[in-house]
Amino acid sequence: MAGGIGSRFWPYSRNSRPKQFLDFFGTGRSLLQMTFDRFSKIVPPENILIVSNKAYLDIILEQLPLLNKKQVLLEPARRNTAPCIAYAAERIYSQNPDAVMVVAPSDHLITKEDEFLNAISRGLEFVSGNSNMLTLGITPNRPETGYGYIQASKMTEENIYKVKTFTEKPNLEMAKVFMDSGEFYWNSGVFLWSVKTIKSAFRKLLPDISAKFEEGSLLMGTDAEQAYIDECFPACQNISIDYGVMEKAQNVYVLCGDFGWSDLGTWGSLYDMSAKDPDGNVSLNCKTLTYGCKDNIICLPKGKLAVLQGLEGYIVVEADKSLLICRKEDEQSIRQFVNDVAMLEDNKDYI
Amino acid sequence: MAGGIGSRFWPYSRNSRPKQFLDFFGTGRSLLQMTFDRFSKIVPPENILIVSNKAYLDIILEQLPLLNKKQVLLEPARRNTAPCIAYAAERIYSQNPDAVMVVAPSDHLITKEDEFLNAISRGLEFVSGNSNMLTLGITPNRPETGYGYIQASKMTEENIYKVKTFTEKPNLEMAKVFMDSGEFYWNSGVFLWSVKTIKSAFRKLLPDISAKFEEGSLLMGTDAEQAYIDECFPACQNISIDYGVMEKAQNVYVLCGDFGWSDLGTWGSLYDMSAKDPDGNVSLNCKTLTYGCKDNIICLPKGKLAVLQGLEGYIVVEADKSLLICRKEDEQSIRQFVNDVAMLEDNKDYI
Repeated sequence: MAGGIGSRFWPYSRNSRPKQFLDFFGTGRSLLQMTFDRFSKIVPPENILIVSNKAYLDIILEQLPLLNKKQVLLEPARRNTAPCIAYAAERIYSQNPDAVMVVAPSDHLITKEDEFLNAISRGLEFVSGNSNMLTLGITPNRPETGYGYIQASKMTEENIYKVKTFTEKPNLEMAKVFMDSGEFYWNSGVFLWSVKTIKSAFRKLLPDISAKFEEGSLLMGTDAEQAYIDECFPACQNISIDYGVMEKAQNVYVLCGDFGWSDLGTWGSLYDMSAKDPDGNVSLNCKTLTYGCKDNIICLPKGKLAVLQGLEGYIVVEADKSLLICRKEDEQSIRQFVNDVAMLEDNKDYI
Repeated sequence: MAGGIGSRFWPYSRNSRPKQFLDFFGTGRSLLQMTFDRFSKIVPPENILIVSNKAYLDIILEQLPLLNKKQVLLEPARRNTAPCIAYAAERIYSQNPDAVMVVAPSDHLITKEDEFLNAISRGLEFVSGNSNMLTLGITPNRPETGYGYIQASKMTEENIYKVKTFTEKPNLEMAKVFMDSGEFYWNSGVFLWSVKTIKSAFRKLLPDISAKFEEGSLLMGTDAEQAYIDECFPACQNISIDYGVMEKAQNVYVLCGDFGWSDLGTWGSLYDMSAKDPDGNVSLNCKTLTYGCKDNIICLPKGKLAVLQGLEGYIVVEADKSLLICRKEDEQSIRQFVNDVAMLEDNKDYI
């Protein structure tokens, strides 16, 4: 899944260059490329599909030159994760009705790749030839309020539990209770199932969406596929797979572990997981000289220099023609700032 | 005088592009050009000399295409204002021993141009054909601690006073006393005199410097001038005209007025005299959106956008490959920052 717009990381990410396409850590590979590289170790590259917005086809093919154009599924509109997954499932089903399927966001970070890939391989076995649905749950290391949680009930096999509930983002007090209980895991947004299982779940729980894609079943993989998707996709309900399917489905399990996972959802989460200088400052890409500065995250284009004095707890980001300075604790306002920027005349250099 | 290096405005000004060459206010003209334009209204352009460092010849000729190369006097080393003025006086004397002379910094701002030019014209009359030395004094509008002051004694003619003392930068308490007394004026660094008068003052008060330039008198205006200056100039004492001559000379007068003058010596002074939004924020060149911000000064390259949240009393400057964020009240530290930047490896993009 590579269709996000990443406005929370503006101006580092922009509409024309969202988070998944950025080389966040200066490693030379974007998050999308890192995700592709990771799965390529256990999935034949020709079996990897990328679902994204039409606007991003060129950048996807540029970043992943191994891909055949047919491996990129193009959404003509943003409709959240449920329609995206229904579309991909239909396509996979048309190629192999007995396939098992991993769904993964393309803009997350995994630092413990071996553990992650072992879990995926185990998970694929666990959902193969049955009606099990599996999510990857992350053992919480802090009472994070920015994530959804999964409550586990009885253990089925080692580290795999039946899911009791999916919960929305909790407040801090609740998050602490969750963490202390030992029963709750972060919802990583990674799902595993057979295509038959997920298609059957859509048929039952989101019948309108299901009907749209099943109707186009014979067109999958043909030259007529895109025209059909362009027609039917915008009419789909805008709904997440968590809310539309997982929270209501039976046979949902969670495979739990610590994979060095982060959704990189906010500057704050990026700050938390980055290397810091002795004063708690994080510099991404750029050189930084700090004087009387604490707990800031600074991200400038490569080769640039930041000289900062007397700043505590700020996000400082420059990219292209925009500079953002914002308190870390107020970063939820960045979306609003971006909306305001979009209202400016001549905003094309900034959005 | 256009030889300053302007490190207090780093990174907006840099060694390769000091303050006088910058279009500070986005008017399309640099401070040097504005100074040249201003004096051109009362001085024939061919009578304007620019004294600067050798490194800046190209940028001067580029910014002032009307100039003949011979009108640019090139210092091979920085030796403060006294040697600079001695050199210019010698050159002018060689062209016209009866000339009167205005000395002015090229990096100051004058917003009341008519009043200023009237004062200059009056001043030139006042020093013509006699041994008077005249400075321009600015009526203080605040107890500024960043300027030198001139104490006036009895009035000679309207707004022209005999000078009692020159004083260094006072502390705040003293500055308040100065201001309340009504006897003190800011020293603008603009001087008027006949070349004969200033040459005679040098002969008496700075005889070593005087001897060097008088010795090269016959070379002035010839092809041998630069070689002679390259030889003698570095050996001159490093001393200001205020300290070396004005504080000790007789017949020193001050012509006082309000010319909308600022030496633009610091971000703080630039802040004080710039138009502010209702929250007291100043934006130079760039677009700015502010949220919960007060009393900041922001200077980004033209066409750039700053989105700032939760900042109070900061300087935010970006230029080329450097970004500086610093509390206004700590701006005296910028020199130190620049020294530290100069110690970095690969500093050439920043200094």
